[in-house]
Amino acid sequence: MSLLFNLKLPEDIKRLTYSELTTLASEVREYIIDVVSKNGGHLAPSLGVVELTIALLRMTDPIRDRIVWDVGHQSYAYKILTDRRDRFPTLRQFRGLSGFNKISESPYDAFGVGHSSTSISAGLGLKVAGTLQQKDIKTVAVIGDGSMTAGIAFEGLNNAGHLKQNLVVILNDNEMSISPNVGALSNYLSKAMTGEIYTKFRKDFQHFMEKSPILGGPLLHFAKKLEEGVKGFFTPGIIFEELGFKYIGPVNGHNIKDLEEALHNAFIQTSPVLIHINTKKGKGYEPAEKNPSKFHGVSKFDKSTGVPIKFSGEKTYTQIFGETITEMASKNDKIVGITAAMPDGTGIAILKEAYPDRVFDVGIAEQHAVTFAAGLAAGGLKPYVAIYSTFSQRAYDQIIHDVALQKLPVVFCLDRAGFVGDDGPTHHGAFDLSFLRIVPNMVIMAPKDGEELMEMLRLSENINLPVAIRYPRGEVDRYDLPHNSVNIAEPEVVFDGGDIAIITVGHIFKEGYRLYHLFKEKGIDATLINLRFIKPLNKDLILKHLNGKSLVVTIEENSLQGGMGEYIQSMANDADIFVKFIKFGIPDIFVEHGDLESLRSLVGLKAEQMAEKLFNLLKL
Amino acid sequence: MSLLFNLKLPEDIKRLTYSELTTLASEVREYIIDVVSKNGGHLAPSLGVVELTIALLRMTDPIRDRIVWDVGHQSYAYKILTDRRDRFPTLRQFRGLSGFNKISESPYDAFGVGHSSTSISAGLGLKVAGTLQQKDIKTVAVIGDGSMTAGIAFEGLNNAGHLKQNLVVILNDNEMSISPNVGALSNYLSKAMTGEIYTKFRKDFQHFMEKSPILGGPLLHFAKKLEEGVKGFFTPGIIFEELGFKYIGPVNGHNIKDLEEALHNAFIQTSPVLIHINTKKGKGYEPAEKNPSKFHGVSKFDKSTGVPIKFSGEKTYTQIFGETITEMASKNDKIVGITAAMPDGTGIAILKEAYPDRVFDVGIAEQHAVTFAAGLAAGGLKPYVAIYSTFSQRAYDQIIHDVALQKLPVVFCLDRAGFVGDDGPTHHGAFDLSFLRIVPNMVIMAPKDGEELMEMLRLSENINLPVAIRYPRGEVDRYDLPHNSVNIAEPEVVFDGGDIAIITVGHIFKEGYRLYHLFKEKGIDATLINLRFIKPLNKDLILKHLNGKSLVVTIEENSLQGGMGEYIQSMANDADIFVKFIKFGIPDIFVEHGDLESLRSLVGLKAEQMAEKLFNLLKL
Repeated sequence: MSLLFNLKLPEDIKRLTYSELTTLASEVREYIIDVVSKNGGHLAPSLGVVELTIALLRMTDPIRDRIVWDVGHQSYAYKILTDRRDRFPTLRQFRGLSGFNKISESPYDAFGVGHSSTSISAGLGLKVAGTLQQKDIKTVAVIGDGSMTAGIAFEGLNNAGHLKQNLVVILNDNEMSISPNVGALSNYLSKAMTGEIYTKFRKDFQHFMEKSPILGGPLLHFAKKLEEGVKGFFTPGIIFEELGFKYIGPVNGHNIKDLEEALHNAFIQTSPVLIHINTKKGKGYEPAEKNPSKFHGVSKFDKSTGVPIKFSGEKTYTQIFGETITEMASKNDKIVGITAAMPDGTGIAILKEAYPDRVFDVGIAEQHAVTFAAGLAAGGLKPYVAIYSTFSQRAYDQIIHDVALQKLPVVFCLDRAGFVGDDGPTHHGAFDLSFLRIVPNMVIMAPKDGEELMEMLRLSENINLPVAIRYPRGEVDRYDLPHNSVNIAEPEVVFDGGDIAIITVGHIFKEGYRLYHLFKEKGIDATLINLRFIKPLNKDLILKHLNGKSLVVTIEENSLQGGMGEYIQSMANDADIFVKFIKFGIPDIFVEHGDLESLRSLVGLKAEQMAEKLFNLLKL
Repeated sequence: MSLLFNLKLPEDIKRLTYSELTTLASEVREYIIDVVSKNGGHLAPSLGVVELTIALLRMTDPIRDRIVWDVGHQSYAYKILTDRRDRFPTLRQFRGLSGFNKISESPYDAFGVGHSSTSISAGLGLKVAGTLQQKDIKTVAVIGDGSMTAGIAFEGLNNAGHLKQNLVVILNDNEMSISPNVGALSNYLSKAMTGEIYTKFRKDFQHFMEKSPILGGPLLHFAKKLEEGVKGFFTPGIIFEELGFKYIGPVNGHNIKDLEEALHNAFIQTSPVLIHINTKKGKGYEPAEKNPSKFHGVSKFDKSTGVPIKFSGEKTYTQIFGETITEMASKNDKIVGITAAMPDGTGIAILKEAYPDRVFDVGIAEQHAVTFAAGLAAGGLKPYVAIYSTFSQRAYDQIIHDVALQKLPVVFCLDRAGFVGDDGPTHHGAFDLSFLRIVPNMVIMAPKDGEELMEMLRLSENINLPVAIRYPRGEVDRYDLPHNSVNIAEPEVVFDGGDIAIITVGHIFKEGYRLYHLFKEKGIDATLINLRFIKPLNKDLILKHLNGKSLVVTIEENSLQGGMGEYIQSMANDADIFVKFIKFGIPDIFVEHGDLESLRSLVGLKAEQMAEKLFNLLKL
């Protein structure tokens, strides 16, 4: 990587010859593959846009002008080629570079991203802000075809077409997105892009010609000319042109010169422009080119083979969900599954494989996913919406207004609750307990281990109300404890005794369990409660265990603001149980990215940290 | 209304002649105008779809089949003609009929609505549920052109096109929506509907013909024939056809026979169908036809003139917002306004009138509104998003992920916080304090009166963080109290003394103030605190006033779950102030519709009710 590491970046890129740029592109790829194989990350998307990144940096002043990368998981080349080349090996590590764009990380990052499909709206805002301040800045939003299915992207396009400013949207068409696209727009796009609409017209036209009574030499000549004239009308981008965009493309997304020309033509327009580029996801790394879905986001892998380096054979919560729901569905044909473009990530792919007609992948469209599920429930089915905690925020109104208000029996299986680790603040499931428990009619559960997740799923089948079950990313926890079956509204009292009560909710039980033992080591008995239900709560049972205690410790991997701790504390207080509470959880900040251990340490959620604080307080 | 009141509904509608149906339609209109002039409600939308309602009831079995009315504010004729004719005079009154569709109100209501643009997703769910259960049910979603701009409608269309089931979407095109449509799609639709796309082709074609070297008789004949062939290809619905829908239309939405024919043709398809109908909003009532925006939603009015019956000349919070922001904008050109299709409802129309280039009406598109505002802020401006509390739920993820995470100085002006009254559970702003206070970096305020709203708005100008200000629908409150200026994080201690502290937040101060006086009448002094800030809180100052008290009473027109009361209670407890709290607020239910007094009584938020409870507790 002798060229890459000898450049002053990004300035020098503008001085290189096209042949040097080709060398640079492969060095950047090599560097990305090397680091991602060690740190994990979003490999295939970033490999696909190396040439685009180079062209953008050559055609703009990336600090004065503004480039918004949708989602941001394709921005590794951009990070390397702006001001983060030398720090790139810290990618996604605690206190290292973020896996996404982040305003606070670099002046080159125009807008922070992580969730999909915001780039058009944000880019439009940046463009309009420039215009209103008499600054003519080039503004580019780079968005993948998969992200186009989300409502906000459409809302952004619609408004951009209306405002008629020179926002440049680059549609990065890799015909893939996170998983193969679903939805009619995607069909339309691929048809449009391959000229199918024009082909249909041509067929109709030829059919008409054949039936026409007048035939002959000059007419055929005329017809040919007419066809050419009409062809221009049927650019693949007609749908975008009708929304007020000028369409440029398709452009070979791996040809820097072509990209530069397209950008040049785009920036001289006064209207919004959509540049449609074709790229290959995973470009330049054979295993990723062959299986771009698998290499969309990866854990550590062997660079030479592409084979992941696995650490354990334990099942994940995600797998347990997928297997359990499939087994339930085999006995209950009312059960259906819904996912918003995350069949693998949520584990619902297992159900889809068994019952393909009963799982609906609606694309990146969380709002529709939830209201569609509400419709399915109103129609007599039992829908399970498999969704990441953080993405459920996208459908908050639909959860309240379409599901809970109507008491429809939709089950939300919230994966990635609590810290997700390397993906950081945009992806942590830090708020769900707080924002869901304020919704009337909801039943909310959180399992401490895989077995409880199974039971909660089975229990949900017979709850005729909206249900949410939250569980974390990663392998299931296991405890050498007797199993107590899950009953509605009932906490599990794991140990009963002593002067102190420890209440935990969900998977963070593991730290509560260790805290219990740390007390035990000091010769102190405690009551250990696994809450299981956040709502409804058997208040009498909980209060019985809090009454007479000298200290209550609550532990949750959720925001302390409005979280479980506050809820129980307020409940106790309302019942005139005036006991001291110490609440552990996520403080009122957005927590950075990093490995789970570092993040839990950061917020004081490790058992040793809690013990130290409590022992000090109790003067032990 | 001799026909309407002598029918057995809805069955008899199928037996009427077309001439009788015309009579029925005008009687229904007369009835709607009569009731809405007394109760207020959504007049113009309902008048526009009387014939459509009749046609739908004739072409379906409305209990077995499923009709979903988007938003539901156009469903009055449907209510009258199904099972609610006699109860219709109770419309929007406490314990009377809802102003929207509601599953719990009638078996004819297939899906509850209130927020816009859910009908396609819900209808698709109902259709698919039928198919999976081997029930061939007709499913219709009726959606206005204005609702089409929302992302969820697009997500629903996209998924419907993909699933290829016979969902019938009726696009009710009144070229108006709540306020005149904005956005490129709307332009496209009106262009498409009026054949502009075809016209463009025709022009191009004629231009080509003129330049063509071969001219003459047979060619002109040929050209004419060709033109006709091509015309079929350019149906106004090409955009829908490309998304997988069969397009029927435009149909005269006031001709029952035409509507029936279109419905017949739609139901025999196997694919999704979009029927495009043209209607006149306000049809049949001259004042509403002339000013459909004004008659979209109305308060009581004089039926003979259409003139509203006003009760007071007091300004509303909405007006104060509009006037204050306009005055601020005159001195600070960084200030811009954003609304999602509610310029009048939110008062931001006042700013738009003064500075048309600095207010952006993005259409019904709350997600985009917020991320666009984030982009404007990232670009150096100071955006004020004027939005109803309940609609901000639609943009929850954008508030968290695009604004708060990046600490962007966007100000959310949350109108309609607390109970909205007649519009009911879909529109109450019952949750905002709870779901916003868990978002890091947010500053949240609530004024007790108009003067505080002004000051809070002015204060927000210099807060370089996301801000939310929540205030209610209706006229400002006034108190004969000295005004204390608003300072960041500081509550206003209105009265200081006694053994009891009363803490209120926002406009519900009025009940707290009366409660204070009810205590006073009993000879009991209390401390009365107007919280002003929910976040950040000057804890020391608050705790100082709670310390040593025997009772703390919190009052909020917000959910008790996760609300202000819990927050302060938990804060006190954490500081080892173990004082009894009695919290008044909205209980953990969806509160029905009705006048504000009835609703506050229902949940025990009236001062007399609170006093009774507290006096009992205190044995006074």
